[in-house]
Amino acid sequence: MESIKNRRTIRKYKQEDIPSSLLNDLLKESFRASTMGNMQLYSVVVTRDKAMKEKLAPAHFNQPMVLTAPVVLTFCADFNRFSKWCKMRKAEPGYDNPISFLNAATDALLVTQNFCTLAEENGLGICYLGTTIYNPDQIVDILQLPELVMPVATITVGYPDECPSQVDRLPVEGILHEEMYHDYTPEDIDRIYAYKESLAENHRFVQENYKETLAQVFTDVRYKKSDNEYMSGVLKATLKKQGFEK
Amino acid sequence: MESIKNRRTIRKYKQEDIPSSLLNDLLKESFRASTMGNMQLYSVVVTRDKAMKEKLAPAHFNQPMVLTAPVVLTFCADFNRFSKWCKMRKAEPGYDNPISFLNAATDALLVTQNFCTLAEENGLGICYLGTTIYNPDQIVDILQLPELVMPVATITVGYPDECPSQVDRLPVEGILHEEMYHDYTPEDIDRIYAYKESLAENHRFVQENYKETLAQVFTDVRYKKSDNEYMSGVLKATLKKQGFEK
Repeated sequence: MESIKNRRTIRKYKQEDIPSSLLNDLLKESFRASTMGNMQLYSVVVTRDKAMKEKLAPAHFNQPMVLTAPVVLTFCADFNRFSKWCKMRKAEPGYDNPISFLNAATDALLVTQNFCTLAEENGLGICYLGTTIYNPDQIVDILQLPELVMPVATITVGYPDECPSQVDRLPVEGILHEEMYHDYTPEDIDRIYAYKESLAENHRFVQENYKETLAQVFTDVRYKKSDNEYMSGVLKATLKKQGFEK
Repeated sequence: MESIKNRRTIRKYKQEDIPSSLLNDLLKESFRASTMGNMQLYSVVVTRDKAMKEKLAPAHFNQPMVLTAPVVLTFCADFNRFSKWCKMRKAEPGYDNPISFLNAATDALLVTQNFCTLAEENGLGICYLGTTIYNPDQIVDILQLPELVMPVATITVGYPDECPSQVDRLPVEGILHEEMYHDYTPEDIDRIYAYKESLAENHRFVQENYKETLAQVFTDVRYKKSDNEYMSGVLKATLKKQGFEK
């Protein structure tokens, strides 16, 4: 599929709205993704309103796409709707626990990727915001997510106004394991990361950050242990607040 | 996209192998999915060997597809490869925590869905096994997954030998929320679940299980509170064993 093979993340969008009918059709199709026991454990919050985008932006570390994209979608793990149905049908739901969160998050993420594929196939561009799970507490407040609903992914969507070059990927054989996981030797690691480390843009990245190696840019600047530990605390507290920690 | 719109889970496969070249091409394309900071925090274990399938089957509650599909794929959240690279490059990885697990699980699940789309577009059929996160401890042992690697999804793949009817989905308006989450009223719930509850197959399902409502089949038979609580314990223990709970 050319749209998957040639995909690139789009961060600049034309000032052109996405018709509601198109957006709804794509979302509807995306809901054909596999879902645990056909429970459809997700909800999608559609943000088009400028004021709402301004509220969401800080939760996404003010990445400009939140304000400039015509549509922002927040995909949520949702056991609220299903549990409400159970209670109304003389059934006692038992989904206020970690495995149920992971089940619902899985459902939501499969739908997220399905939507991205469909959007790109239809000429739209998307940017996946990983920040959603860094500040879930803020997003819960802004979007008024009730118990048993947890945001897991945010996508900005619009008609592309750029065509950036495609970024690198690791060699496939560095990711596949035949029959069993064959742990990596130092030689494997050197080979798998050689191309990435050879790229001019990554050399520049190391220099700009005054580091010695590309890996240090990740561990010391972009994805730091102290940040991860802080955000793990927020994640756990938010899962508890949303009722998934019984 | 017709292959997404018309998709159905396939549980019966022809006795026909999937060429390695095709499988690798599809996996390679699937790795174009969005990934956190381009870290590609996943590994895929490919199972073709009969003896390995027999070992995996009990972890998937002996669902027959594990034995009858030519290929079983286990998608894993993987911070092991990246952390090994960091250590070899004078960088101290800090990814032994819950947020890093969720980041890696997200990467792995986006790739999983991308692979499913590509497989179906190419005439293959898939079945998503939700059992992976119910028995992660067994899968860790069988596939010899090291620390910072956690199985999150299993897909059985093969050429379809059946064409089951397409299953129902909830009405789109029951899943979408404009600007903010609008919590469900009892009337909303009645409306959203009306079609599902009206289906003859679901009436039969209720009768066969000697229940009063469809919801009770879920809470009392298929996805029970006690099972969820037990599996949440296994999940937490396995995440700890795999080093994601610092």
